[in-house]
Amino acid sequence: MNKHLDKVQIGVCYYPEQWDPSLWEEDVQLMKATGVRVVRLAEFAWSRLEPADGQFAFGWLDQAIDLFHKYRIRVVLGTPTNTPPRWLTGLAPDILPVDAAGRTVHPGVRGHRCYNSGSLRVYGARIIEEMAKRYGGHPAVIGWQTDNEFWVIDCHCAACNERFREWMRAKYGSLEAVNREWGTVVWSGEYGDWSQAGVPYGGSPHQNPSYLLDFTRFQWDSIAEFQRSQIGIIREHCPGHFIAHNFHTYPQRLDLYRIGADLDIASFDYYPNTDPDKQATGPYSGALALDVTRGIKRRNFWIMEQLSGPPGCWFPTWRAPYPGFIRAFAWQAIAKGADTVVHFRWRSAAAGAEQFWHGLIDHSNVPGRRFEEFAKLCGEVNALAGKLQGTAPRNEAAILLSHEQLEALRIQPQAGGFDYYENVKDYHRALTKLGIGCDVIEWTQPLAGYKLVVAPHVFLMDEKAAEALESFAEAGGTVILTSRSGAKRMNNQHVMMPLPGLLAKCAGVTVKEYDPIGRASHRIADAAGRHFYGMQWCDILSLQEAEAIAWYDEDFYRGEPAVTVNRFGQGKVYYLGTHPEESYLKELFASIAGELELAAFPGLPEGVQVAVRNGESGAYLFVLNLSREPRHVTLPSSYPSELYGVIRERTLSLAPYEVDILRIS
Amino acid sequence: MNKHLDKVQIGVCYYPEQWDPSLWEEDVQLMKATGVRVVRLAEFAWSRLEPADGQFAFGWLDQAIDLFHKYRIRVVLGTPTNTPPRWLTGLAPDILPVDAAGRTVHPGVRGHRCYNSGSLRVYGARIIEEMAKRYGGHPAVIGWQTDNEFWVIDCHCAACNERFREWMRAKYGSLEAVNREWGTVVWSGEYGDWSQAGVPYGGSPHQNPSYLLDFTRFQWDSIAEFQRSQIGIIREHCPGHFIAHNFHTYPQRLDLYRIGADLDIASFDYYPNTDPDKQATGPYSGALALDVTRGIKRRNFWIMEQLSGPPGCWFPTWRAPYPGFIRAFAWQAIAKGADTVVHFRWRSAAAGAEQFWHGLIDHSNVPGRRFEEFAKLCGEVNALAGKLQGTAPRNEAAILLSHEQLEALRIQPQAGGFDYYENVKDYHRALTKLGIGCDVIEWTQPLAGYKLVVAPHVFLMDEKAAEALESFAEAGGTVILTSRSGAKRMNNQHVMMPLPGLLAKCAGVTVKEYDPIGRASHRIADAAGRHFYGMQWCDILSLQEAEAIAWYDEDFYRGEPAVTVNRFGQGKVYYLGTHPEESYLKELFASIAGELELAAFPGLPEGVQVAVRNGESGAYLFVLNLSREPRHVTLPSSYPSELYGVIRERTLSLAPYEVDILRIS
Amino acid sequence: MNKHLDKVQIGVCYYPEQWDPSLWEEDVQLMKATGVRVVRLAEFAWSRLEPADGQFAFGWLDQAIDLFHKYRIRVVLGTPTNTPPRWLTGLAPDILPVDAAGRTVHPGVRGHRCYNSGSLRVYGARIIEEMAKRYGGHPAVIGWQTDNEFWVIDCHCAACNERFREWMRAKYGSLEAVNREWGTVVWSGEYGDWSQAGVPYGGSPHQNPSYLLDFTRFQWDSIAEFQRSQIGIIREHCPGHFIAHNFHTYPQRLDLYRIGADLDIASFDYYPNTDPDKQATGPYSGALALDVTRGIKRRNFWIMEQLSGPPGCWFPTWRAPYPGFIRAFAWQAIAKGADTVVHFRWRSAAAGAEQFWHGLIDHSNVPGRRFEEFAKLCGEVNALAGKLQGTAPRNEAAILLSHEQLEALRIQPQAGGFDYYENVKDYHRALTKLGIGCDVIEWTQPLAGYKLVVAPHVFLMDEKAAEALESFAEAGGTVILTSRSGAKRMNNQHVMMPLPGLLAKCAGVTVKEYDPIGRASHRIADAAGRHFYGMQWCDILSLQEAEAIAWYDEDFYRGEPAVTVNRFGQGKVYYLGTHPEESYLKELFASIAGELELAAFPGLPEGVQVAVRNGESGAYLFVLNLSREPRHVTLPSSYPSELYGVIRERTLSLAPYEVDILRIS
Repeated sequence: MNKHLDKVQIGVCYYPEQWDPSLWEEDVQLMKATGVRVVRLAEFAWSRLEPADGQFAFGWLDQAIDLFHKYRIRVVLGTPTNTPPRWLTGLAPDILPVDAAGRTVHPGVRGHRCYNSGSLRVYGARIIEEMAKRYGGHPAVIGWQTDNEFWVIDCHCAACNERFREWMRAKYGSLEAVNREWGTVVWSGEYGDWSQAGVPYGGSPHQNPSYLLDFTRFQWDSIAEFQRSQIGIIREHCPGHFIAHNFHTYPQRLDLYRIGADLDIASFDYYPNTDPDKQATGPYSGALALDVTRGIKRRNFWIMEQLSGPPGCWFPTWRAPYPGFIRAFAWQAIAKGADTVVHFRWRSAAAGAEQFWHGLIDHSNVPGRRFEEFAKLCGEVNALAGKLQGTAPRNEAAILLSHEQLEALRIQPQAGGFDYYENVKDYHRALTKLGIGCDVIEWTQPLAGYKLVVAPHVFLMDEKAAEALESFAEAGGTVILTSRSGAKRMNNQHVMMPLPGLLAKCAGVTVKEYDPIGRASHRIADAAGRHFYGMQWCDILSLQEAEAIAWYDEDFYRGEPAVTVNRFGQGKVYYLGTHPEESYLKELFASIAGELELAAFPGLPEGVQVAVRNGESGAYLFVLNLSREPRHVTLPSSYPSELYGVIRERTLSLAPYEVDILRIS
Repeated sequence: MNKHLDKVQIGVCYYPEQWDPSLWEEDVQLMKATGVRVVRLAEFAWSRLEPADGQFAFGWLDQAIDLFHKYRIRVVLGTPTNTPPRWLTGLAPDILPVDAAGRTVHPGVRGHRCYNSGSLRVYGARIIEEMAKRYGGHPAVIGWQTDNEFWVIDCHCAACNERFREWMRAKYGSLEAVNREWGTVVWSGEYGDWSQAGVPYGGSPHQNPSYLLDFTRFQWDSIAEFQRSQIGIIREHCPGHFIAHNFHTYPQRLDLYRIGADLDIASFDYYPNTDPDKQATGPYSGALALDVTRGIKRRNFWIMEQLSGPPGCWFPTWRAPYPGFIRAFAWQAIAKGADTVVHFRWRSAAAGAEQFWHGLIDHSNVPGRRFEEFAKLCGEVNALAGKLQGTAPRNEAAILLSHEQLEALRIQPQAGGFDYYENVKDYHRALTKLGIGCDVIEWTQPLAGYKLVVAPHVFLMDEKAAEALESFAEAGGTVILTSRSGAKRMNNQHVMMPLPGLLAKCAGVTVKEYDPIGRASHRIADAAGRHFYGMQWCDILSLQEAEAIAWYDEDFYRGEPAVTVNRFGQGKVYYLGTHPEESYLKELFASIAGELELAAFPGLPEGVQVAVRNGESGAYLFVLNLSREPRHVTLPSSYPSELYGVIRERTLSLAPYEVDILRIS
Repeated sequence: MNKHLDKVQIGVCYYPEQWDPSLWEEDVQLMKATGVRVVRLAEFAWSRLEPADGQFAFGWLDQAIDLFHKYRIRVVLGTPTNTPPRWLTGLAPDILPVDAAGRTVHPGVRGHRCYNSGSLRVYGARIIEEMAKRYGGHPAVIGWQTDNEFWVIDCHCAACNERFREWMRAKYGSLEAVNREWGTVVWSGEYGDWSQAGVPYGGSPHQNPSYLLDFTRFQWDSIAEFQRSQIGIIREHCPGHFIAHNFHTYPQRLDLYRIGADLDIASFDYYPNTDPDKQATGPYSGALALDVTRGIKRRNFWIMEQLSGPPGCWFPTWRAPYPGFIRAFAWQAIAKGADTVVHFRWRSAAAGAEQFWHGLIDHSNVPGRRFEEFAKLCGEVNALAGKLQGTAPRNEAAILLSHEQLEALRIQPQAGGFDYYENVKDYHRALTKLGIGCDVIEWTQPLAGYKLVVAPHVFLMDEKAAEALESFAEAGGTVILTSRSGAKRMNNQHVMMPLPGLLAKCAGVTVKEYDPIGRASHRIADAAGRHFYGMQWCDILSLQEAEAIAWYDEDFYRGEPAVTVNRFGQGKVYYLGTHPEESYLKELFASIAGELELAAFPGLPEGVQVAVRNGESGAYLFVLNLSREPRHVTLPSSYPSELYGVIRERTLSLAPYEVDILRIS
């Protein structure tokens, strides 16, 4: 592994091109004094690096990088393809994406580039090669970020149309196969000639869902191929450098795993919501995002952009981060496996569209409260870096995530209130509140080493995936399955089997019928007679081998099984016919955790999260109060605080947004 | 009349092209065993019937029809023009509609065909002629459905532009007349040359309302002409077959009467909402839709698609139909004059966009609860078919419906909360709750035979229509008029007369002023001092010949007449200056029903509907509990139950969604 | 000054071209009898004045004007460029605007003309010149309205693209300057060649805010230049006529001051909302609009369209105006400095899109309640015209308004609930409720003569504007500054200074940090311990020279200053760090009014507004009950009522929508 990758350290994003050079050295000196160890540069600077076709102007970047080197701050460079300059889009308008209605995306913002544009490949390769050749040997430069925050743009340009046709041909070989796998006979959509095939102009949501899912897969492959074309160049000229990509806020329609496959390391742009009332993008959502990011490569990761002040700009500015907020969420990232945390950004922009996406330092250039907190963080991280280096989360539970499921369930949303990723959040939050660490991994990854696997809404299914879950259970694992599983083949056609289709065998139940209750709720009862509510969907279950552990308690299917468990080989498979409220999930997971002897942290107060990093240097328990209220945490034992150099007795009191790091072994 | 039309029977929609032929005979056998008597086929199968230009492939359809014939199940064929195949839209892109913003509607969904496309006329005629010639003599085939669920698409393609110009010329003769009848002088919109005339590009709602109304009328005529071109071919080759069209959920902007004029029979696609909380599309709304459908030809009708499972797909899946729901609503359709009820669809689609528009049998092909209920329905219908054949609703009350009013009031919506069709629903629901059977007929139809005519919001008016209402009242009829009547000439220009314009004479009132109260409400009082609320609009009335029967009780017009009645000849004309809440309408209609000795059913519990079919075989009272609660209905006498073979005493207890059919004479 | 401008009189908008000529004289006679003194004609009549290219047809207008002259009613003519006729847009399609997505705005509505269209300049000039030559000497014609209700249309046509490039070149001289002033380096948006510059195709809100602000400024200049081209023609041929423009409902993105600069007089189209529940567009909002209009030229103005009946058409019809409403709001306009009030419109249109924008007389042509009220108004105005002529509001307080601030804060909206113009309304309403008359003037106007200047959200700032405020305060004035002041340079780049930037000196505070609380609220406390709520934004202040007068009372900045005052020279500068609720603003303004001895009217009941017109003939206090409830107003003394010819003692009782006019000196 690249020696820079697992350093536990803090960085910042810096834009020398946006500031008068007279400010640079003062900025770098302050970074140095503050404890910053790494900067990210140049990912939007194409117009400055190549002001006109083939005219390169690296002097300013040389100067900036040299300056960082002078102060021994490491540099990560971004490939600048996210923002092709105006001279280039003028010269090669095929770079600009075209939406489903045929409207060109115009320059002036960013992301105005089609991943399949031939011109972008040529001109992008040239600037990247120039950069890679120039900085491959620079002692300050350690790695690269590809482009910036990839996302699916549903481009309908001529190149995409042609490339999609090629993709179809490569995947299916013949139109007969396309027609069969997409079921185009419905509504007379059969293709008789390749010229009829192409992107879904018009963007109607009524299009064939098999087609729409493949169109998205094609886009994922296009982005991956676009990235690979960059990676090849960098690898050639910068063999010692690592390559990362900064993934944008989840959920993305982007398949993180396809993009991640070619990277050395995953990284994430982490902007936890500063508004205490916006829980949907709050601390638990963030915890999931961090676990997702760690799962991309199934190892530690970087944060490439960490919240430094209130974001804003084209939406209302967020609330000021509460005292401790910036530091606490940086520690949360590290607790979850981030090694380097790069803050976005050093100073708020004075110009351009992102003037109110606030940095660590305000426009005034007068360091304030947020900067002081950042400085404290830098000091703490640098002090603990040695111990934390090489440690990582090690979990016995995993949630399976799939962008194919996400996309298939976006195309056909099933029920009011049903949202694949929000439901994944619900499962993850219940585990998090119980202090049960879990990984979030791509749904077809090997499951060896886990005791518990939660597989929400595995809507698309094939024999291999079903067998993997069966094998895991047979070997003693516990699997949680849910409604809307096994409904589809991978081609997004419905199975002609009782649901959960290929999973019925291990689940030991079949679905007789279902009631998509949407935004209503349905009371269920467990064996102890306790009542809970289910939401979104109610599968009415027919027990085959399984036994019921909760029952519907309303409507015409009152008394029918709602949740079941099936002994399967050495393990167990649970089936949740409805999406239960959190209190039920916590009961269920607590019970399973007890049975499986999963590491858990009972009695965590609301808003407090825990995570453990293990390694040769020891095991470190991070206790994070991510709320605006003081909290008291009962520890299983007394532990030394690595952060404060004291011994914490059984009760750990945490001020709002206070954090502690305890050595537990 | 075609001998197949008035059979009381159950059918299903079936798509042999979507299933492996190995499933066909098993499916047909099960249909036969279940009691299915008719199937609808092929309305989306163009790509299979003509896989390439001029290459016809009828073998599979021959085979399917022969199979149905083998089991003596009758076949209705759809003309497949709703879904032109890809080879055709590639060859003749003028088939594709173009929206007001100039965006082409792309293939891949359905309905991607402009009614005025010359190419569609040519290619559509060819495939229909091939089908008609081939199946005109097949003993299983009894009739046809034209296209599928016509609707107004506001196409702005070149053909529509040209055809609209021709339509204008045919209607008005000269641009002088156009300018005068549309009042184009306002905002300098005058036409000086035919080249300036055409469709309303841009789709602004601020366009001249006379123009917009005529543009919609043009579209109605275009659809009717498109349908006539199909009907001509079928009549030529299939003289013994009937022709229907399956109208889509109401309200449509489509003028059902223009399309219906050329058909042998009306049919409707009936999807009552399975969610008990969605009353706007619930049982009373359905009752109106059925009465509307019966009114299209003023005789019994078919249901061409009847709900069989929860719809879904591009919207959240509906709730599971409650036990009894499917059967009860099929009986409701029959009670209201449906003879054949064709369920959509046999089995849920495994492919394509409608996978979650559930059929009678789930994707698994395992018949379940819904199918059992359907089988029971088939048995009951087949048992009663002999008695019910030839019977029909016979009513003494009528509501006048007009798509010209609907469209004019859509173009200029008058007040917040004001909705022509929703208001019609309110009048119809009040009658339905009182057990007063009513017809819903086109507003210019002859009124002979009725005692009561409700004419909501006859906004557009001409002398002939006014005289028809006057004559009806003079001859002893009772007419209900409402606010927003007589405001416009048929050209959608405002009258320069006190409102209700041409109706002021028979109403015996004029409108001094009005207060469009929108979503607020206004208290009114009747002569007994009882209070009710009016909504949407308050006409402040000046009594001419009429007398007041309710008065405004708020605001500056407190004490002014709100509802009046005028003795006119031998009859009476009521004028409702405000849109009253249901309780007022029920009081008013109950009082009128008493006076006119209309058949009514006092004391019906909430959710229970009644309807009577009369004929030579007797009179049958359908009592339908369309709710999730048990209900008890007090009968005027004891009657034999045709459904259950028992005598029902004075109290009839109905379980949720239970139905009974009583012979009352 | 033009002798017609300051006549206090009532007019109507009349459209002879829309009515049969047989109605004209009867209409004019009724106008005359009613007391109407002026009419506006012809602003949409291009197609009648020039029915074909170069074929003029003025006969009908001659006849109409002669008829008005016969009855000594004065005529204001509109230039008809708002509605180019169909022959012209057919001949010169470059007249039609094109939106950001490239969609052409089609004819048939109005405003379908690009201000930069070369063809429109040519053809517009020709028709205006014909009109001006023909009517320049007509004794009835006194003035002109340019076009109709200008607004920013964000046209992206080829001409706008080219003209914007020229505008950029004229403003900045070089692309280097453009790049610097817009900060295009961010996101590689730098221009390397003039061909890359142009309008913001695509309309993304993520575009560079400096660019977007300049694009709007360019549009303002385009409209002003378009208007100047018309004014030049009129001035040449009609030297004795005045020129006005009828500004549309505020806020407009249009810079009223740039357009107003070339006019003789401002005028406004005043449509106070008739719904008592719609306060956002109710009497206080109207009071601001009138003060804004008076501020355009800093002198009295006209109302060119005054509400006469409920508006409607493409939105739900408004409520009927309550008895007294029409009269009361006309008097409100006069109280605030309107001299001539022209009602829109004489009679409701029978044809075209505005049939439900009701006039004084209904479609029936039977004058009703509204007309009677109008007739009463005419009589009263004519009776008082002599006394009121030459009087005008004279105020000691001013609010600074700026469309550049409005536009910059629209481009970057700062916080949820933050709305520049709505906030200006809040300050204005607090003053109005205290009976403190105030002017609303362009933010860079001279401030001499005022004691109090309220400067809400002066977001963009330069040295000159800052110095003007400093000088005003130094000389003894009181200034109110608010959050979001001084944040930007005029080029819409952020300052690199502590906020409020250039205003920090006079404010005596700096902003340490801010919390954009959006739609939440934050409790503050004043020195007396009273609690109020702040909204939208909280600046956390650092006292430099100022002292605190209110403090935050929640969250992590509890106890920090929220509102401060700074003695600056002879005056004082207040800084409001949060947007306070009305009760706080009233307390603050009452206290300042006391200190500055501003004329105020304590104890005004809710809904009652007062205003004073001063002149050589005396001072007239208008007391307006703009509510549906009777109100009792305590007067400082007894005064003679000019309206009713009685003496009003200390308690003035006003029925709903009653008005009185008292001579107070």
